[in-house]
Amino acid sequence: MREDRQNNEIREIKITPNYLDHPDGSVLIECGNTKVICTVMIENKVPLFLRGKNKGWLSCEYSMLPGSTPTRKVRDISRGKLDGRSSEISRLIGRSLRACIDLDKIGERTIWIDCDVISADGGTRTTSITGSYIALEIAIKKYLKDKKIEENPLICKVGAISVGKVGGINLVDLDFKEDSNADVDLNVVMNDNFEIIEIQGTGERDTFSIDELNKFLEDAKVGISDIFKYYEIVEDYI
Amino acid sequence: MREDRQNNEIREIKITPNYLDHPDGSVLIECGNTKVICTVMIENKVPLFLRGKNKGWLSCEYSMLPGSTPTRKVRDISRGKLDGRSSEISRLIGRSLRACIDLDKIGERTIWIDCDVISADGGTRTTSITGSYIALEIAIKKYLKDKKIEENPLICKVGAISVGKVGGINLVDLDFKEDSNADVDLNVVMNDNFEIIEIQGTGERDTFSIDELNKFLEDAKVGISDIFKYYEIVEDYI
Amino acid sequence: MREDRQNNEIREIKITPNYLDHPDGSVLIECGNTKVICTVMIENKVPLFLRGKNKGWLSCEYSMLPGSTPTRKVRDISRGKLDGRSSEISRLIGRSLRACIDLDKIGERTIWIDCDVISADGGTRTTSITGSYIALEIAIKKYLKDKKIEENPLICKVGAISVGKVGGINLVDLDFKEDSNADVDLNVVMNDNFEIIEIQGTGERDTFSIDELNKFLEDAKVGISDIFKYYEIVEDYI
Amino acid sequence: MREDRQNNEIREIKITPNYLDHPDGSVLIECGNTKVICTVMIENKVPLFLRGKNKGWLSCEYSMLPGSTPTRKVRDISRGKLDGRSSEISRLIGRSLRACIDLDKIGERTIWIDCDVISADGGTRTTSITGSYIALEIAIKKYLKDKKIEENPLICKVGAISVGKVGGINLVDLDFKEDSNADVDLNVVMNDNFEIIEIQGTGERDTFSIDELNKFLEDAKVGISDIFKYYEIVEDYI
Amino acid sequence: MREDRQNNEIREIKITPNYLDHPDGSVLIECGNTKVICTVMIENKVPLFLRGKNKGWLSCEYSMLPGSTPTRKVRDISRGKLDGRSSEISRLIGRSLRACIDLDKIGERTIWIDCDVISADGGTRTTSITGSYIALEIAIKKYLKDKKIEENPLICKVGAISVGKVGGINLVDLDFKEDSNADVDLNVVMNDNFEIIEIQGTGERDTFSIDELNKFLEDAKVGISDIFKYYEIVEDYI
Amino acid sequence: MREDRQNNEIREIKITPNYLDHPDGSVLIECGNTKVICTVMIENKVPLFLRGKNKGWLSCEYSMLPGSTPTRKVRDISRGKLDGRSSEISRLIGRSLRACIDLDKIGERTIWIDCDVISADGGTRTTSITGSYIALEIAIKKYLKDKKIEENPLICKVGAISVGKVGGINLVDLDFKEDSNADVDLNVVMNDNFEIIEIQGTGERDTFSIDELNKFLEDAKVGISDIFKYYEIVEDYI
Repeated sequence: MREDRQNNEIREIKITPNYLDHPDGSVLIECGNTKVICTVMIENKVPLFLRGKNKGWLSCEYSMLPGSTPTRKVRDISRGKLDGRSSEISRLIGRSLRACIDLDKIGERTIWIDCDVISADGGTRTTSITGSYIALEIAIKKYLKDKKIEENPLICKVGAISVGKVGGINLVDLDFKEDSNADVDLNVVMNDNFEIIEIQGTGERDTFSIDELNKFLEDAKVGISDIFKYYEIVEDYI
Repeated sequence: MREDRQNNEIREIKITPNYLDHPDGSVLIECGNTKVICTVMIENKVPLFLRGKNKGWLSCEYSMLPGSTPTRKVRDISRGKLDGRSSEISRLIGRSLRACIDLDKIGERTIWIDCDVISADGGTRTTSITGSYIALEIAIKKYLKDKKIEENPLICKVGAISVGKVGGINLVDLDFKEDSNADVDLNVVMNDNFEIIEIQGTGERDTFSIDELNKFLEDAKVGISDIFKYYEIVEDYI
Repeated sequence: MREDRQNNEIREIKITPNYLDHPDGSVLIECGNTKVICTVMIENKVPLFLRGKNKGWLSCEYSMLPGSTPTRKVRDISRGKLDGRSSEISRLIGRSLRACIDLDKIGERTIWIDCDVISADGGTRTTSITGSYIALEIAIKKYLKDKKIEENPLICKVGAISVGKVGGINLVDLDFKEDSNADVDLNVVMNDNFEIIEIQGTGERDTFSIDELNKFLEDAKVGISDIFKYYEIVEDYI
Repeated sequence: MREDRQNNEIREIKITPNYLDHPDGSVLIECGNTKVICTVMIENKVPLFLRGKNKGWLSCEYSMLPGSTPTRKVRDISRGKLDGRSSEISRLIGRSLRACIDLDKIGERTIWIDCDVISADGGTRTTSITGSYIALEIAIKKYLKDKKIEENPLICKVGAISVGKVGGINLVDLDFKEDSNADVDLNVVMNDNFEIIEIQGTGERDTFSIDELNKFLEDAKVGISDIFKYYEIVEDYI
Repeated sequence: MREDRQNNEIREIKITPNYLDHPDGSVLIECGNTKVICTVMIENKVPLFLRGKNKGWLSCEYSMLPGSTPTRKVRDISRGKLDGRSSEISRLIGRSLRACIDLDKIGERTIWIDCDVISADGGTRTTSITGSYIALEIAIKKYLKDKKIEENPLICKVGAISVGKVGGINLVDLDFKEDSNADVDLNVVMNDNFEIIEIQGTGERDTFSIDELNKFLEDAKVGISDIFKYYEIVEDYI
Repeated sequence: MREDRQNNEIREIKITPNYLDHPDGSVLIECGNTKVICTVMIENKVPLFLRGKNKGWLSCEYSMLPGSTPTRKVRDISRGKLDGRSSEISRLIGRSLRACIDLDKIGERTIWIDCDVISADGGTRTTSITGSYIALEIAIKKYLKDKKIEENPLICKVGAISVGKVGGINLVDLDFKEDSNADVDLNVVMNDNFEIIEIQGTGERDTFSIDELNKFLEDAKVGISDIFKYYEIVEDYI
């Protein structure tokens, strides 16, 4: 049905590791026309409730630049409140990344992950998770190399993909146009054993059965395995 | 393993329909020690982007009273910003309820759903969805009876339950203590055909396989079918 | 003039002590169709300006749920600012309750009082004061019993009532409809010696003489003495 | 007991009418060391809920400059929220001034009253009410003279004073030092028939009987009659 | 061209030193019909980033009262955000004043400068800088006299003036009407050696050459030298 | 003195025109290690105060991504208020760009310019102005080509550069390290006739004479002429 790729085929991904100077880890990740800057900055302190417990924390913020969407996205500070969708996605990314790291091994530090969408064409949240993981791995390897932390706190790799049903057909890695027409929309985050870290599915326009869910998950698995292939490519740069 | 109920058994639910005077629909729903007031108020206008399109809108807000949690929950307005978790749950409830109603059939009206947690002991979001559905049904029936709308816009019933894994054992309808110790936490929203409206699962402390997900879903199905039984009881009051 | 009660008669009050699980003290208080949840939570710290002075603090917040009023009450956080009326009432309740307690006897603790109006039918501020006092007494007795504090810090009981002039006739405990038509509106807070703790009177539509004020106060005294009768009933539960 | 004035004597008042260029009415009012700028600006529109009803509105805002208090008063915008005390006083002033004007006679206009405390030495709210009344009278007379309104909407004059009990002695027009030591603090707003417009009394440190209240009110009456004397003096300037 | 003064002549200035009781230094400065209250309050603490460094800090806030402008200026807290223009001017005044003081000589203290415009008729920012300098000198001399600081931290005097081009003619110290018609608008802050501390020029409606800039600066120099003459007059009061 | 470039030499600039899909005009501009995304989005409406006047508006917002600075830059929405420095720079860019366009020729449209700093190494405001101009020219040419506007509203080209004095030596286009050590810091915005649009100079650590200012301006002129050379290169892409 799709013109330029198979229904279960992800868009081409381009990853520019170490994209910025200041963060401990950073990538520009492009998935089709979706572009996200993911940065990881590690701060030598933890929130009040964790002080003195020799544990770390990881927090994530997702946001969209005004020029990232077809109609200008008004900045949160101009509206005077955090965008609800951004807040929801920030929490999703945070949970997904916390699943891959043992925060007891990073000392009293906070890992700040920022995902800023530069151009949105569907899949910004899954692209952000994938990009954040790579930026995090870069930052952690730097910390290990610099002996700022002793033991590798990373537990697994993390990848994410969207799947959905559009006009009765299951699609993987939906672009904006497809996403706007989707009856079912599912975001799946998995580790490199293809176990589920997060699953978030919505049938706002159409419900779906457990059987259908399983088909979506099979597709997601394939998509995420394709994403993991890109990790190997960038490994040397990390 | 549980002392007072089976692992796949939901807590006792108590529903007080028409709990308040002013809203078009309202219930006090108690699920174990979790208590939520759900109200539905219908306003004769729609947001700007919908004006003149002869369609309605449905919006939801979830919040917790300061005394609902073991440690006092600081009000959003005192913190100066909307709680991220509340925002995420508000969006979840909104999507779930929009799935059961045809907004083309309510005219240019906004349905406001408010879920205010009075006492929290786990499962506040699923209890809110269940309570909101009943309050919505009450409001819609009143509108039909008063001939403010002509055709029933409700498409299906909606029920929600949490399932999770605690200490290696799958549990349905987790209370706060169980939820705090859960390795996997899954919230499922289904219609009365047991099709999925929303699924949201997190393996923050432990990932889970697709097989495990299917077991969780079977449990969820049982739990939600138990919830639907309560709907029959209140039907007369509606 | 009134159909169902005397002009100087208060509405029936229903008090549900220990209404919630988490707070140190809580009541659901219903005064006619006005319903308020009052909770007391005691925190083991004081504001910065009191630290190290071995004194406590008492702070109060009053708010209305969206479904408590005929037209949906927009949440403060959605409007981005604290409702002026709520702020004024919060301060009134705080002053009233501070008058009945010796904060030197509670150690370096903050007593948080929250009054959340669930259904509004006039007299929400006076009902809140009455309900808060009972919740406070419950919390203090619990603290005394648990030997968290040694000496009873309560100085007196506190009760509150509204009086007003509607169509030339003095009324006690006005409901919403009466309140909306009142030319004079007076809220009186007294202790159990019927001495005044707070008096707040407004003649927005009609001024009143000192003589009239004295008549209002006589009525208030009767009303508050009726309120104190309910305290005896709940004493055992406390 | 007081060194420089009788217990029931008000401080010297200095009124500079037409203090500013832009407002329709303005005064600098100095009551002892308390200085307040009161301005009245009339806008040719009303809030949404009044449109098309041929009625006016009156709104008031009270604020303190950072340099008005012994310790610098942080601006509301820096704290991110409206000061609760300022909000309460704004509402008091608004109610007091609305009592003296028939808003049906000003057309669809909003009267904005702003009271900005430049220097605070007790009695800022009563000084603000007094100053606002004079500024309002100036603005109204200007509007009458310019034939922008036809009929005088002013119903009565308004004056305000504080009375209190300090160390067992009743005092009128308390300065900051007296106010800080007051056991009882009462603010009274009266019209020129010495009828009560607003009464607000607090016995935070000590309750008071109805008899005592009556004594306070007698003192207030004397104080307010002294204030009205100043109105005659400025009449020519208006 | 001007009716009542030469093109390079400043408006008459009136300075009331020690205008308020509470601040360490204060002036009411009137420049034509522009009136600003400038206060200096010194606090015995510094922002977090300076603690323990034995250095001071100076911070400035500029704001306009609602009645200072022809159309009522809505308060920042009502709009929910700091006015961009006020923020820009606050920063300008802060930089200008920091240029005249050695903050290493004031100990761990913060100097708060507040400029509140009471009446605006052009030149509020330059009037604020001039007034702030005088208030600062007053506060510093008081601190030196009281031996709270040992060495005079003031490095130079500071004065400011606006110059501009209106209808092809260069003018000094523009009033509001002139400023509204200016093609070029330049604000210049100088010390008493006529060296530049701040220069801020805008050619929004017309650009200007470097030669023209030099002519503006010559005018500014004359204007500022006239301003410094007023400093001598108030010296005794300081 | 500089190692890798002359004192009056600007850093290498890299401009990627049409960097993003959605905006009407966009560039990624890199000036040394400073990287800014500049976007121009044109909206078919104007602010309220301009409606019906057949004129357009141009508004600008400048912001820094969290990962753009050595220490993570907390987002404005998390701090709850707009960063003062960002606000000041937004206004500077807005004024600079308004100087090059005749808003009477764009119809009732708002031109939104957004400058988001991705990586900061000094000169972010001047780089933003330069980048914004190019993005604006792209957008305008597109509008002319699409015949959405008839006449070219652009009046001149705009370029900007910083100059400063570091350790007694004048430098052009300061990087972050140089900027941090600058005694004098001057930002100059010029058109392609080298007339001044904006000049903003600060001598926070050291004042400067009019003669010195003229030397800075000569340097700025050279720097800006070098910047204009890059405009030719990108002309074809526009």
